[in-house]
Amino acid sequence: MSLPSEIRADLGRFLATLDASSSIGKGREGGLCRLTLTEADREMRDLFVQWCREAGLDVTIDGIGSIFARRAGTEDLPPILVGSHLDTQENGGRFDGIVGVLGALEVVRRLNDLGIATRRPIEIVNWTNEEGARFSPPMIASGCFVGDYKLDWALGLKDAEGVTLGEALETIGYRGKATVGEREVDSYFELHIEQGDVLDRTGHDVGIVTHAYASHGILVEYRGETAHTGPWPMARRKNALVAGARLLVAVDDLGWEYAATGGKATAARLSASPNKAGLLSDWAEAVCDVRHEDPQVADLMRVRMLRAVAEAGVRAGCEHRVLDQWNWGGDIFDRDMVEHVRAAVEKLGVSGLELPSQAGHDAYFLARHVPTAMIFTPCKDGITHNNQELATPQMLEPGLNVLLHAVTARADRP
Amino acid sequence: MSLPSEIRADLGRFLATLDASSSIGKGREGGLCRLTLTEADREMRDLFVQWCREAGLDVTIDGIGSIFARRAGTEDLPPILVGSHLDTQENGGRFDGIVGVLGALEVVRRLNDLGIATRRPIEIVNWTNEEGARFSPPMIASGCFVGDYKLDWALGLKDAEGVTLGEALETIGYRGKATVGEREVDSYFELHIEQGDVLDRTGHDVGIVTHAYASHGILVEYRGETAHTGPWPMARRKNALVAGARLLVAVDDLGWEYAATGGKATAARLSASPNKAGLLSDWAEAVCDVRHEDPQVADLMRVRMLRAVAEAGVRAGCEHRVLDQWNWGGDIFDRDMVEHVRAAVEKLGVSGLELPSQAGHDAYFLARHVPTAMIFTPCKDGITHNNQELATPQMLEPGLNVLLHAVTARADRP
Repeated sequence: MSLPSEIRADLGRFLATLDASSSIGKGREGGLCRLTLTEADREMRDLFVQWCREAGLDVTIDGIGSIFARRAGTEDLPPILVGSHLDTQENGGRFDGIVGVLGALEVVRRLNDLGIATRRPIEIVNWTNEEGARFSPPMIASGCFVGDYKLDWALGLKDAEGVTLGEALETIGYRGKATVGEREVDSYFELHIEQGDVLDRTGHDVGIVTHAYASHGILVEYRGETAHTGPWPMARRKNALVAGARLLVAVDDLGWEYAATGGKATAARLSASPNKAGLLSDWAEAVCDVRHEDPQVADLMRVRMLRAVAEAGVRAGCEHRVLDQWNWGGDIFDRDMVEHVRAAVEKLGVSGLELPSQAGHDAYFLARHVPTAMIFTPCKDGITHNNQELATPQMLEPGLNVLLHAVTARADRP
Repeated sequence: MSLPSEIRADLGRFLATLDASSSIGKGREGGLCRLTLTEADREMRDLFVQWCREAGLDVTIDGIGSIFARRAGTEDLPPILVGSHLDTQENGGRFDGIVGVLGALEVVRRLNDLGIATRRPIEIVNWTNEEGARFSPPMIASGCFVGDYKLDWALGLKDAEGVTLGEALETIGYRGKATVGEREVDSYFELHIEQGDVLDRTGHDVGIVTHAYASHGILVEYRGETAHTGPWPMARRKNALVAGARLLVAVDDLGWEYAATGGKATAARLSASPNKAGLLSDWAEAVCDVRHEDPQVADLMRVRMLRAVAEAGVRAGCEHRVLDQWNWGGDIFDRDMVEHVRAAVEKLGVSGLELPSQAGHDAYFLARHVPTAMIFTPCKDGITHNNQELATPQMLEPGLNVLLHAVTARADRP
């Protein structure tokens, strides 16, 4: 059946869950610091699991800690997955990811209120380590779920203190028994704040995400030699810190070169060792990425970034190694799934805008293997990954209702 | 009296102390990692104090942990200080600094062997935190001794873990009761490995240090704003890591511009926070310096470095603050003191070369207030601040004997 158009989610109940989340892992004023698999993340997960069980859902945890909460369908068909992530950046906001998981919970609770069964099961999902703030790269668990990443590799990734992702899962008791992926899924919906200022600036209620910025990221290592910062001649220096700095500047310059068409490039991380006054560093590691709406331009930026990796090494007399590369985005979303979102927008009479996603999302990995769509809510001035991140109830309500109607329509389709 | 020219230091005994030192705080293969005021530094200090007491010296520790071991003179006159430092870099060698302290010990032991009294007292000194590898800036204790640095400020400096220099002194039991400085000193001699390849390349036995490269260092802080590495437009980014990287590249470029006349510029340290993939950093701190033999050129380099500080900040949209500046070098050594070194070289019939010092030394601070001279020994290929640092016994012997004769001559002058 199709949900009557006057049905709305319970905004107050949804906001109450968001409030509860906002008090777990408080960061800077108004923000959250809930890095994945920390004690704060465990507390949030425990509360979320409790809510799901209270809603009568069947909760399973998989081998990389992702939480699935299933509402049975009337038929034994593959489920519609709906979710996002509950972890945050170090200086994270209260909405990024969280809105998508708690929004999915509200969808299920509302269907429960109304005693509405759907043909297909609906499964809420909370993906582990979406942010990549503790374990790099980001979106690890969704990448494993679809089989693009190997589980063993992911479990062995280390944080800055040398703790592996596997150990961190054990510590907080979230290394589940369920197989990671390897099962049929009907589709995936993800509700998210836009993390850009387009909706806020143009005054639209909901973003209908049609495609994604193509993004290419790399992890690079440079090796040089320690020496005295004083007498050692310039021509004999092999300062790995200089190699890393030259790469980051080149990447930032690349961002500016393509800024006119919305391109971006980011110098995200640089670590060097010994990194001390008085000593040239013999090791450095850098993370950087490039993004563009046009996949061909993004690929050109990637090629130039890789050239900069080598050039920075040569100019600083250092060896370089690209330890990891990742990419996502492009024309990845499913037409029928986007159509469900567009139909819900029209049915509810809210104003929707078609736009691309610029940030990375678990939806990108799902989209490679499963029909996927994303719904954006506006967020104030586009500010995100910052304690000032803000999506007011008025900004959240239309997207939440679009999610409710789109998911139900998908779950009930013939 | 003047020491007979056939008198030589006991090279074997000196090398035995150097061997003992080489086993305390072992670092990478063949090198040392004996950061100031660590457990390894305590162990070395304890052994050094024991040696001094066994040599009949009167040991005092001052309020910043510098160790003074006094051999009385026949008259109550200000002492000749002779020494250097026992701390090392993280990837340090076995000779840098250590040769100067243990060389001074051998001078005193040799005079004891011969039962030779000097008119003026001779005081061996081990300065705390010469390297600046744990607490920045370097040469803290000698700076305090001469009154150029405030003791309270120095004791409050923090290492990377937030431990203050004062706390570190307490922990290893080396916060002494003696007043820091504020007493008359006749002069200061420092024996040191060259930390350059001039002597090794030209085959000279001893370096007669006539002047010092002028050096200017800065500690800079940048403040920006965290934001998402994806959607956030280039024009709104305030990535402090980019500001820091732009400064380091500009400083490295400056080094190359002046390389033809032996100028150097160093990007030594860059720390950023949060410094994570996915997030723009809102804080960065950088240490860099410029050096040139000609003080006027060094000053020009300093001005250009400071301009680069501001430009890097502006280009990355960040605020900058120069937290600290330091400088040393120039035409700082005392003519009479250098004459003592030259006279000893001639008397001993070894080959001496007049040359500038390029690295920073405690001698630079002393030289501002007290007649000072330095003696260099060759070191293999100029390699230093590296575990491959090497000064063979043959390289060390002439400088050690020059120190013995120069110090005795100074101490006994009318």
